[in-house]
Amino acid sequence: MLKLYHHTMSVDSRFIRLILSEYEESVEFIEELTWLRRSEFLKLNPANTLPVLIEENQGAQGTAPICGAMVIAEYLDETRGALKRERRLFPESPAKRAEVRRIMNWVLVKLENEVTRYMVHERVIKSQIPRDQGGGAPDSTAIRAARANIKYHIKYLGWLATTRDWLGGDRLSYADLSVGAAISVLDYLGEVPWSENDALKEWYACLKSRPSFRPLLNDKIRGLPPVSHYVDLDF
Amino acid sequence: MLKLYHHTMSVDSRFIRLILSEYEESVEFIEELTWLRRSEFLKLNPANTLPVLIEENQGAQGTAPICGAMVIAEYLDETRGALKRERRLFPESPAKRAEVRRIMNWVLVKLENEVTRYMVHERVIKSQIPRDQGGGAPDSTAIRAARANIKYHIKYLGWLATTRDWLGGDRLSYADLSVGAAISVLDYLGEVPWSENDALKEWYACLKSRPSFRPLLNDKIRGLPPVSHYVDLDF
Repeated sequence: MLKLYHHTMSVDSRFIRLILSEYEESVEFIEELTWLRRSEFLKLNPANTLPVLIEENQGAQGTAPICGAMVIAEYLDETRGALKRERRLFPESPAKRAEVRRIMNWVLVKLENEVTRYMVHERVIKSQIPRDQGGGAPDSTAIRAARANIKYHIKYLGWLATTRDWLGGDRLSYADLSVGAAISVLDYLGEVPWSENDALKEWYACLKSRPSFRPLLNDKIRGLPPVSHYVDLDF
Repeated sequence: MLKLYHHTMSVDSRFIRLILSEYEESVEFIEELTWLRRSEFLKLNPANTLPVLIEENQGAQGTAPICGAMVIAEYLDETRGALKRERRLFPESPAKRAEVRRIMNWVLVKLENEVTRYMVHERVIKSQIPRDQGGGAPDSTAIRAARANIKYHIKYLGWLATTRDWLGGDRLSYADLSVGAAISVLDYLGEVPWSENDALKEWYACLKSRPSFRPLLNDKIRGLPPVSHYVDLDF
């Protein structure tokens, strides 16, 4: 049995939820509010970041927490994916693996640092926490900067969608699931400029219709409903 | 033959230089100034980040650029490390690999975002570029924030050094080389509070005396010499 500490609006968490669902793992999900800095959670992951995966009943070796999306994705490939044959979400050759990892890193580091982190912090987290702990009205300057940056990312991801069957190559891979995780968070908030890229829209419609995506489309944030097309498979 | 686009004060670049040197690869090094946004370099890596590894004369599959430290580190493990037996810089078991990757990610994402990026940008890059392109005097607020953050990181890395033979487990691994890369950049600038942690200092003295570290200790930034103990093996 696996246990995943996650948060609904964390791109890293959504990415791992998608992998676990594609691999049909049975998982206990625990929502963690990292801004509370719970001491029990800090013992699991002193970086206080999400997600954290716990593999229970696997003997001494399997019990240490696996921390962070990129680390968990590699771990799941080594312990599950490698046995999945044509359903493996990671290519076999080192060069193709490098390309999938490049896109994963783009989403989980670059897009996160330039767009997603600000959008989620300003528009979601600050509405959930008390004012004396950093909550309050969103900073419009940060949101404006993130909105300017997103256009450039959408253009690049759209170029990938235009020139390839799937974003990381000719098969569904971690590249698609990581980009899908980020797009889904931004789309919940109505921040994806869909009109600017048809190929990306088609790719996302296809990804969104997979059973693994359904739980993400049912996610809700208290006091902040998703935009109307968020759950729509023909948006 | 390998070709590496890098920068002297980029932690990610130094990490890969250390791996290549430990594996005794012969490499052509090209210093890239990413703030120039050279169109030839953007064709290799549209993210405009360092390092970028080119594997030449390896047939069609090997010629695509490998972009980013984490991606290159995994690629080098798959194409070189896996054949090195006891000199491999990455453990074999998925759980131990997860621990090494957790520390790599800590350094290359968390420490980078909270400390190193600001230190290098304010104290190094801004002195190298013209004022109308963002150069100029360092922002003392950013440096103060980075100096406050570094203490917490040194404490955590010191705890790892106290409780383990090497930072990622019982053998030299990517964990040590990534932390060593970051510490070396911060130490060049005199920003490591050595007095606060003896175990970390001992670990670093040991790492610093490896032949793979020598080229890093010879690095120089124009107009900004390293602090006096930077090259000293008994600092």
